[in-house]
Amino acid sequence: MREFDDLSHVVALLSWDQETNMPRTGAAARAAQLSTLNVLRHERLCDPRLGELLELGAEGEPSQEQAAMIRNLEHDRDRAVRLPVEFVRRMAAAESRGASIWREARAADDFGMYRPVLEEIVGYKREQAELIGYEGEPYDALLDAYEPGMTVARLEPLLASLRVELERILGAIRGRPAAPVAPFVSRTFEPAAQWELTLRILRDIGFDLGAGRQDISAHPFSTSISLQDVRLTTRLDESNPFDAIYSSIHEAGHGMYEQGFDPRFAGTPLAQAPSHGIHESQSRMWENWVGRSRPFIEHYTPIMREAFPDALADADAGQIYDEVTRVEPTLIRVESDEVTYNLHILIRFELELALLRGELEVAELPDAWNDTYERTLGIRPPSDALGVMQDIHWSHGSHGYFPSYTLGNLYAAVLWEALVRDLPDAEAGFAEGSFAPVLEWLREHVHRLGYLHSAEDTVRIASGGSGLEVGALVRYLDTKYETA
Amino acid sequence: MREFDDLSHVVALLSWDQETNMPRTGAAARAAQLSTLNVLRHERLCDPRLGELLELGAEGEPSQEQAAMIRNLEHDRDRAVRLPVEFVRRMAAAESRGASIWREARAADDFGMYRPVLEEIVGYKREQAELIGYEGEPYDALLDAYEPGMTVARLEPLLASLRVELERILGAIRGRPAAPVAPFVSRTFEPAAQWELTLRILRDIGFDLGAGRQDISAHPFSTSISLQDVRLTTRLDESNPFDAIYSSIHEAGHGMYEQGFDPRFAGTPLAQAPSHGIHESQSRMWENWVGRSRPFIEHYTPIMREAFPDALADADAGQIYDEVTRVEPTLIRVESDEVTYNLHILIRFELELALLRGELEVAELPDAWNDTYERTLGIRPPSDALGVMQDIHWSHGSHGYFPSYTLGNLYAAVLWEALVRDLPDAEAGFAEGSFAPVLEWLREHVHRLGYLHSAEDTVRIASGGSGLEVGALVRYLDTKYETA
Repeated sequence: MREFDDLSHVVALLSWDQETNMPRTGAAARAAQLSTLNVLRHERLCDPRLGELLELGAEGEPSQEQAAMIRNLEHDRDRAVRLPVEFVRRMAAAESRGASIWREARAADDFGMYRPVLEEIVGYKREQAELIGYEGEPYDALLDAYEPGMTVARLEPLLASLRVELERILGAIRGRPAAPVAPFVSRTFEPAAQWELTLRILRDIGFDLGAGRQDISAHPFSTSISLQDVRLTTRLDESNPFDAIYSSIHEAGHGMYEQGFDPRFAGTPLAQAPSHGIHESQSRMWENWVGRSRPFIEHYTPIMREAFPDALADADAGQIYDEVTRVEPTLIRVESDEVTYNLHILIRFELELALLRGELEVAELPDAWNDTYERTLGIRPPSDALGVMQDIHWSHGSHGYFPSYTLGNLYAAVLWEALVRDLPDAEAGFAEGSFAPVLEWLREHVHRLGYLHSAEDTVRIASGGSGLEVGALVRYLDTKYETA
Repeated sequence: MREFDDLSHVVALLSWDQETNMPRTGAAARAAQLSTLNVLRHERLCDPRLGELLELGAEGEPSQEQAAMIRNLEHDRDRAVRLPVEFVRRMAAAESRGASIWREARAADDFGMYRPVLEEIVGYKREQAELIGYEGEPYDALLDAYEPGMTVARLEPLLASLRVELERILGAIRGRPAAPVAPFVSRTFEPAAQWELTLRILRDIGFDLGAGRQDISAHPFSTSISLQDVRLTTRLDESNPFDAIYSSIHEAGHGMYEQGFDPRFAGTPLAQAPSHGIHESQSRMWENWVGRSRPFIEHYTPIMREAFPDALADADAGQIYDEVTRVEPTLIRVESDEVTYNLHILIRFELELALLRGELEVAELPDAWNDTYERTLGIRPPSDALGVMQDIHWSHGSHGYFPSYTLGNLYAAVLWEALVRDLPDAEAGFAEGSFAPVLEWLREHVHRLGYLHSAEDTVRIASGGSGLEVGALVRYLDTKYETA
């Protein structure tokens, strides 16, 4: 168990280094190193001796924690043993190739260059689903890797009802005049000052920089090398400081979760989130519920003006709040606002579900993508680079991952309602820079539990009864954007 | 073979990250990760299937390259299979503990705190030598890890004759007036300017920063994550820019060697130096033969004056040359000059040999150390922190490593004589910033060969006949320091 955990963290370090420090010339050797480590992990997970030990453990009288460890490891092991090591190796090679071809193809805006490897990867995903098996339909087998136990049967109606609500909210917002664009949006924001500001915010909200660090990478991410070594990245865009600020807050949401697991769980399968959706609920909550709240902006407006004395000389909190909560259909998911974001996800879910059901082929994907964007958001991508090729996920075989983003928003909303019931003054406290009550509540009700319970049970226990539902998110958006 | 190579490079990355990026709180988990990886490497190396494959390979008709690969892997395997995995695990744990206790004990200047773990480690080293076996004496078994095939029988008389010559040279230098101390030695040198200067020198001498990088660490080192990803570190001391400059040049000597292996050897046991001494010959040659030459200093004096306009306003090349070639007995090996450096090594060799022979016990080490310093260099350490506890090596069980430093100087001298025979104008070219001829010569005669031949054969082929000898180093020092 601990050896498996060590190998997983070593893989995390190899990936972190690849995005932050590695010279580009090191890419081929790094791919080989990652492949070797992943094959070793797979072998250890499939080792018959581990199977025997897990059975023995389950037959003894395991404590609640031991039972959860066994259940978590068995879940991963059951999925792994169904995949022949040769299949894993071939699929991993295709996915590694896929990500690098995707980078080139996106830069060249050439879907034709990307198509063959994507077809290959979709082929592997269909095969993987069959090898792993499912009760409902093939997509379930992929979804289960990110959201254990989640099914299309559960997800599809839930997301369908969310879509109706989001379209209503978006319609209401678009039906009224937008806030005027503040003059600062076309100004320049010193990267060094952005960097210092993000570090200050990390410290303020409670990310422990003594047991972690922040670096720069092209695409922000967070990762744990151990519970005491949690790493975030951000990026600095001279023309938009909010990209760095909200990337840092988002990743710190992930990072504080990892820093908050019960230290007794270190090295065990309990020191992890129950699902990617739960992990995402923490990053989203800090980014949007906290970071895009009025009191947060009021608190940081003078601090931002000090950091960017030229660019923000004439800016007030109202203008900044309007900018960071502007709702507008756009082409790019990662730049979208908190209302349309989930519509971007629903588009991807719809398309990858169709791919897995065999109702859609890769060749038809660009047209299907553009049609769905036009139908859902009223805008048609002018190119595949700004359309179907914008995300890395499919290129490295993460089909089934996208729903976790929206599940994260749904869980965040449920948790937030519970938090506010317990701490009615929490949000007002942000205006004084007080974030500790929120972090402490999350530590106690979510973080420290790790993967002791399933995703939905974790939320149910924390919230005192509410599980996965659409209502809380809709109430949050209706209140914030005055669309009720 | 490639899997073993991948694991070795992953270990290198974990160690690099530990010294450059890891928050201190990550230390315990990192030790566990390194231990897991090292045990996996050991297991793979001892896998009976690898033994069978190596035998099959040797029985076929291997090419020269294949035969060298088999020989190199067999050498490591033969050493590994003699150590039970439980022994390896226990020894590795003691060594990991040793290094961390050493840090504390050195800071507290408390040998008593260090002594128990050092006794334990010396015990493991004696046991390790017996398990591995030897023809001559136990120390041979340890030496062979760093200098395959080298023995005390060969080394002891060689180093004894070197000692006589070094004492003669040191006596001659001390018998004449020292160069006056330049006023700049007590000034301040902007760290940012030091950093830029070291990067410039790296580029100038030929280290490929596009396929590598430089970072900061407490103790400079170099490591390869792959042939295309070679990493150096340096450190910035406000009061002494030469520490950074010569650390960077030294590590670049190692790094350019790694960058120069034949790319066809990537992932095989040929993509490495034949011994640590040969590796050290490259770092020493760039640091001392190149970096501490008059033409080098003449070339860089105006560049350094530009980098440090205040501190070096009144400095000329002569003064800088005098400072970087000042010979003076001091207590600390890593700060010593190129004449006394080898005497520091001879002291360590003498003491660790006595420890392995059982002629000396750890409890007696501080007194023995101080006596030997007084006898050899005429100065007695005022504390154990400045004496027996100054080096990390024994604390993590690298007994048998020290001779490689002096072997490196001996090999460097032999290679340099050969290089100058082929390129009589090489040194003069440094005055114009021309370093490419030296690098090209080393690439062709040393680097690209990797571990195709033994250490001494590599030097013999490169030099056209000269192997390991004391004469070349003595001639170099006699000429440079005018002591002939």
